[in-house]
Amino acid sequence: MSTLEALPITPVGACCTPVTKDVLSLADAEAMAVAFKALSDPTRLRLLSIVAASDGDEACVCDLTEPIGLSQPTVSHHLKILMDAGYLTRSKRGTWAYYKLVPGSLDRVSALLATAAA
Amino acid sequence: MSTLEALPITPVGACCTPVTKDVLSLADAEAMAVAFKALSDPTRLRLLSIVAASDGDEACVCDLTEPIGLSQPTVSHHLKILMDAGYLTRSKRGTWAYYKLVPGSLDRVSALLATAAA
Repeated sequence: MSTLEALPITPVGACCTPVTKDVLSLADAEAMAVAFKALSDPTRLRLLSIVAASDGDEACVCDLTEPIGLSQPTVSHHLKILMDAGYLTRSKRGTWAYYKLVPGSLDRVSALLATAAA
Repeated sequence: MSTLEALPITPVGACCTPVTKDVLSLADAEAMAVAFKALSDPTRLRLLSIVAASDGDEACVCDLTEPIGLSQPTVSHHLKILMDAGYLTRSKRGTWAYYKLVPGSLDRVSALLATAAA
Protein backbone atom coordinates (compact mmCIF):
# COMPACT_ATOMS: atom_id res chain seq x y z
CA MET A 1 0.00 0.00 0.00
CA SER A 2 1.30 3.36 -0.96
CA THR A 3 1.77 6.12 1.55
CA LEU A 4 -1.13 8.43 2.15
CA GLU A 5 -1.34 11.46 -0.03
CA ALA A 6 -2.86 14.74 0.93
CA LEU A 7 -5.80 15.72 -1.21
CA PRO A 8 -5.87 19.21 -2.67
CA ILE A 9 -8.40 20.78 -0.37
CA THR A 10 -9.55 24.26 -1.22
CA PRO A 11 -10.27 26.37 1.85
CA VAL A 12 -13.97 27.20 2.04
CA GLY A 13 -15.73 29.90 4.06
CA ALA A 14 -15.88 30.48 7.78
CA CYS A 15 -18.64 27.88 8.15
CA CYS A 16 -16.17 25.10 7.95
CA THR A 17 -13.92 23.09 10.20
CA PRO A 18 -10.52 22.88 8.52
CA VAL A 19 -9.14 19.49 7.52
CA THR A 20 -5.95 19.40 9.55
CA LYS A 21 -4.44 16.05 8.61
CA ASP A 22 -3.89 13.97 5.47
CA VAL A 23 -6.82 12.05 4.11
CA LEU A 24 -6.93 8.74 2.23
CA SER A 25 -5.97 8.82 -1.43
CA LEU A 26 -8.42 7.27 -3.87
CA ALA A 27 -5.97 4.44 -4.63
CA ASP A 28 -5.57 3.55 -0.95
CA ALA A 29 -9.32 3.80 -0.39
CA GLU A 30 -9.97 1.44 -3.30
CA ALA A 31 -7.50 -1.14 -1.96
CA MET A 32 -9.05 -0.91 1.52
CA ALA A 33 -12.58 -1.24 0.12
CA VAL A 34 -11.61 -4.56 -1.51
CA ALA A 35 -10.33 -5.86 1.84
CA PHE A 36 -13.57 -4.85 3.60
CA LYS A 37 -15.82 -6.10 0.79
CA ALA A 38 -14.48 -9.62 1.25
CA LEU A 39 -15.58 -9.41 4.90
CA SER A 40 -18.99 -7.90 4.18
CA ASP A 41 -20.82 -11.18 3.81
CA PRO A 42 -22.02 -13.33 6.74
CA THR A 43 -21.13 -16.62 5.01
CA ARG A 44 -17.55 -15.48 4.42
CA LEU A 45 -17.21 -14.30 8.01
CA ARG A 46 -18.45 -17.67 9.27
CA LEU A 47 -16.07 -19.52 6.95
CA LEU A 48 -13.16 -17.44 8.24
CA SER A 49 -14.34 -18.09 11.78
CA ILE A 50 -14.48 -21.86 11.25
CA VAL A 51 -11.00 -21.89 9.71
CA ALA A 52 -9.67 -19.70 12.56
CA ALA A 53 -11.33 -22.02 15.11
CA SER A 54 -9.73 -25.12 13.61
CA ASP A 55 -6.53 -26.75 14.74
CA GLY A 56 -3.57 -24.87 13.25
CA ASP A 57 -5.91 -22.26 11.71
CA GLU A 58 -6.54 -24.75 8.91
CA ALA A 59 -9.70 -26.58 7.86
CA CYS A 60 -10.51 -29.25 5.32
CA VAL A 61 -13.12 -28.17 2.78
CA CYS A 62 -15.06 -31.27 3.84
CA ASP A 63 -15.58 -29.62 7.23
CA LEU A 64 -16.74 -26.27 5.85
CA THR A 65 -19.82 -27.09 3.80
CA GLU A 66 -22.00 -28.75 6.44
CA PRO A 67 -21.85 -26.08 9.20
CA ILE A 68 -22.46 -23.32 6.64
CA GLY A 69 -25.55 -25.09 5.29
CA LEU A 70 -24.99 -24.00 1.69
CA SER A 71 -24.08 -25.94 -1.43
CA GLN A 72 -20.47 -26.88 -2.15
CA PRO A 73 -20.26 -24.55 -5.20
CA THR A 74 -21.54 -21.60 -3.14
CA VAL A 75 -19.05 -22.32 -0.35
CA SER A 76 -16.25 -22.65 -2.93
CA HIS A 77 -17.24 -19.30 -4.44
CA HIS A 78 -16.96 -17.59 -1.04
CA LEU A 79 -13.66 -19.36 -0.27
CA LYS A 80 -12.25 -18.08 -3.56
CA ILE A 81 -13.18 -14.48 -2.66
CA LEU A 82 -11.45 -14.90 0.71
CA MET A 83 -8.36 -16.28 -1.05
CA ASP A 84 -8.33 -13.50 -3.64
CA ALA A 85 -8.51 -10.93 -0.84
CA GLY A 86 -5.54 -12.55 0.92
CA TYR A 87 -7.28 -13.99 3.97
CA LEU A 88 -6.93 -17.68 3.10
CA THR A 89 -4.52 -19.94 1.27
CA ARG A 90 -5.44 -23.32 -0.20
CA SER A 91 -3.39 -26.49 -0.39
CA LYS A 92 -4.34 -29.92 -1.66
CA ARG A 93 -3.36 -33.02 0.30
CA GLY A 94 -4.66 -36.33 -1.03
CA THR A 95 -8.33 -36.03 -1.94
CA TRP A 96 -8.99 -32.93 0.12
CA ALA A 97 -8.33 -29.24 -0.16
CA TYR A 98 -7.33 -27.44 3.02
CA TYR A 99 -7.86 -23.75 3.69
CA LYS A 100 -5.52 -21.93 6.04
CA LEU A 101 -5.83 -18.47 7.56
CA VAL A 102 -3.05 -16.18 6.32
CA PRO A 103 -1.19 -15.19 9.50
CA GLY A 104 -1.67 -11.51 10.28
CA SER A 105 -4.23 -10.90 7.52
CA LEU A 106 -6.97 -9.83 9.93
CA ASP A 107 -4.49 -7.77 11.94
CA ARG A 108 -3.65 -5.93 8.73
CA VAL A 109 -7.33 -4.97 8.36
CA SER A 110 -7.25 -3.54 11.87
CA ALA A 111 -4.21 -1.53 10.84
CA LEU A 112 -6.11 -0.27 7.77
CA LEU A 113 -8.89 0.93 10.04
CA ALA A 114 -6.37 2.83 12.11
CA THR A 115 -5.11 4.40 8.87
CA ALA A 116 -8.62 5.52 7.92
CA ALA A 117 -9.08 7.16 11.29
CA ALA A 118 -5.55 8.54 11.62
CA MET B 1 -23.87 -8.04 20.07
CA SER B 2 -24.78 -11.42 21.53
CA THR B 3 -22.19 -13.83 22.80
CA LEU B 4 -20.81 -16.32 20.32
CA GLU B 5 -22.64 -19.59 20.02
CA ALA B 6 -21.12 -22.89 19.10
CA LEU B 7 -22.51 -24.33 15.91
CA PRO B 8 -23.64 -27.94 15.96
CA ILE B 9 -20.76 -29.52 14.16
CA THR B 10 -21.08 -33.18 13.26
CA PRO B 11 -17.79 -35.06 13.42
CA VAL B 12 -16.67 -36.08 9.96
CA GLY B 13 -14.15 -38.72 8.92
CA ALA B 14 -10.45 -38.98 9.62
CA CYS B 15 -9.63 -36.62 6.75
CA CYS B 16 -10.55 -33.64 8.80
CA THR B 17 -9.02 -31.21 11.22
CA PRO B 18 -11.40 -30.87 14.16
CA VAL B 19 -12.97 -27.50 14.91
CA THR B 20 -11.69 -26.91 18.39
CA LYS B 21 -13.23 -23.55 19.29
CA ASP B 22 -16.57 -21.79 18.95
CA VAL B 23 -17.43 -20.29 15.60
CA LEU B 24 -19.50 -17.22 14.75
CA SER B 25 -23.26 -17.61 14.94
CA LEU B 26 -25.25 -16.57 11.88
CA ALA B 27 -26.75 -13.61 13.80
CA ASP B 28 -23.33 -12.30 14.85
CA ALA B 29 -21.96 -12.82 11.33
CA GLU B 30 -24.86 -10.85 9.85
CA ALA B 31 -24.31 -7.92 12.22
CA MET B 32 -20.59 -7.92 11.47
CA ALA B 33 -21.20 -8.07 7.71
CA VAL B 34 -23.29 -4.88 7.94
CA ALA B 35 -20.43 -3.11 9.73
CA PHE B 36 -17.93 -4.19 7.05
CA LYS B 37 -20.29 -3.49 4.16
CA ALA B 38 -20.45 0.17 5.16
CA LEU B 39 -16.64 0.26 4.85
CA SER B 40 -16.48 -1.63 1.55
CA ASP B 41 -16.74 1.44 -0.66
CA PRO B 42 -13.84 3.80 -1.46
CA THR B 43 -16.00 6.94 -1.30
CA ARG B 44 -17.24 6.07 2.18
CA LEU B 45 -13.72 5.31 3.37
CA ARG B 46 -12.53 8.69 2.06
CA LEU B 47 -15.47 10.48 3.69
CA LEU B 48 -14.64 8.80 7.01
CA SER B 49 -11.01 9.74 6.51
CA ILE B 50 -11.84 13.41 5.86
CA VAL B 51 -14.08 13.56 8.92
CA ALA B 52 -11.40 11.84 11.03
CA ALA B 53 -8.77 14.27 9.69
CA SER B 54 -10.86 17.33 10.61
CA ASP B 55 -10.59 19.31 13.78
CA GLY B 56 -12.50 17.57 16.58
CA ASP B 57 -13.25 14.60 14.26
CA GLU B 58 -16.08 16.69 12.79
CA ALA B 59 -16.57 18.11 9.30
CA CYS B 60 -19.12 20.40 7.69
CA VAL B 61 -20.93 18.81 4.77
CA CYS B 62 -19.78 21.83 2.75
CA ASP B 63 -16.21 20.51 3.13
CA LEU B 64 -17.02 16.97 2.07
CA THR B 65 -18.41 17.26 -1.44
CA GLU B 66 -15.53 19.00 -3.18
CA PRO B 67 -12.64 16.69 -2.18
CA ILE B 68 -14.74 13.62 -3.00
CA GLY B 69 -15.55 14.94 -6.47
CA LEU B 70 -19.06 13.52 -6.59
CA SER B 71 -22.48 15.18 -6.53
CA GLN B 72 -24.04 16.34 -3.28
CA PRO B 73 -26.85 13.72 -3.43
CA THR B 74 -24.31 10.93 -3.93
CA VAL B 75 -22.19 12.17 -1.03
CA SER B 76 -25.33 12.43 1.14
CA HIS B 77 -26.26 8.87 0.24
CA HIS B 78 -22.87 7.59 1.40
CA LEU B 79 -23.00 9.70 4.56
CA LYS B 80 -26.37 8.20 5.42
CA ILE B 81 -24.97 4.65 5.08
CA LEU B 82 -22.11 5.60 7.41
CA MET B 83 -24.61 7.05 9.91
CA ASP B 84 -26.88 3.99 9.72
CA ALA B 85 -23.88 1.74 10.38
CA GLY B 86 -22.97 3.80 13.45
CA TYR B 87 -19.75 5.42 12.22
CA LEU B 88 -21.00 9.02 11.98
CA THR B 89 -23.51 11.25 13.71
CA ARG B 90 -25.04 14.36 12.14
CA SER B 91 -25.95 17.65 13.77
CA LYS B 92 -27.31 20.81 12.21
CA ARG B 93 -25.89 24.19 13.25
CA GLY B 94 -27.19 27.20 11.36
CA THR B 95 -27.29 26.48 7.63
CA TRP B 96 -24.84 23.62 7.75
CA ALA B 97 -24.91 19.96 8.71
CA TYR B 98 -21.86 18.64 10.54
CA TYR B 99 -20.76 15.02 10.54
CA LYS B 100 -18.82 13.68 13.49
CA LEU B 101 -16.96 10.39 13.87
CA VAL B 102 -18.56 8.23 16.58
CA PRO B 103 -15.77 7.77 19.14
CA GLY B 104 -14.57 4.17 19.26
CA SER B 105 -16.65 3.05 16.25
CA LEU B 106 -13.62 2.02 14.19
CA ASP B 107 -12.00 0.41 17.23
CA ARG B 108 -15.14 -1.67 17.62
CA VAL B 109 -14.65 -3.01 14.09
CA SER B 110 -11.12 -4.05 15.02
CA ALA B 111 -12.59 -5.87 18.02
CA LEU B 112 -15.07 -7.62 15.70
CA LEU B 113 -12.16 -8.82 13.59
CA ALA B 114 -10.51 -10.23 16.68
CA THR B 115 -13.79 -12.04 17.44
CA ALA B 116 -13.91 -13.57 13.97
CA ALA B 117 -10.37 -14.86 14.36
CA ALA B 118 -10.67 -15.88 18.04
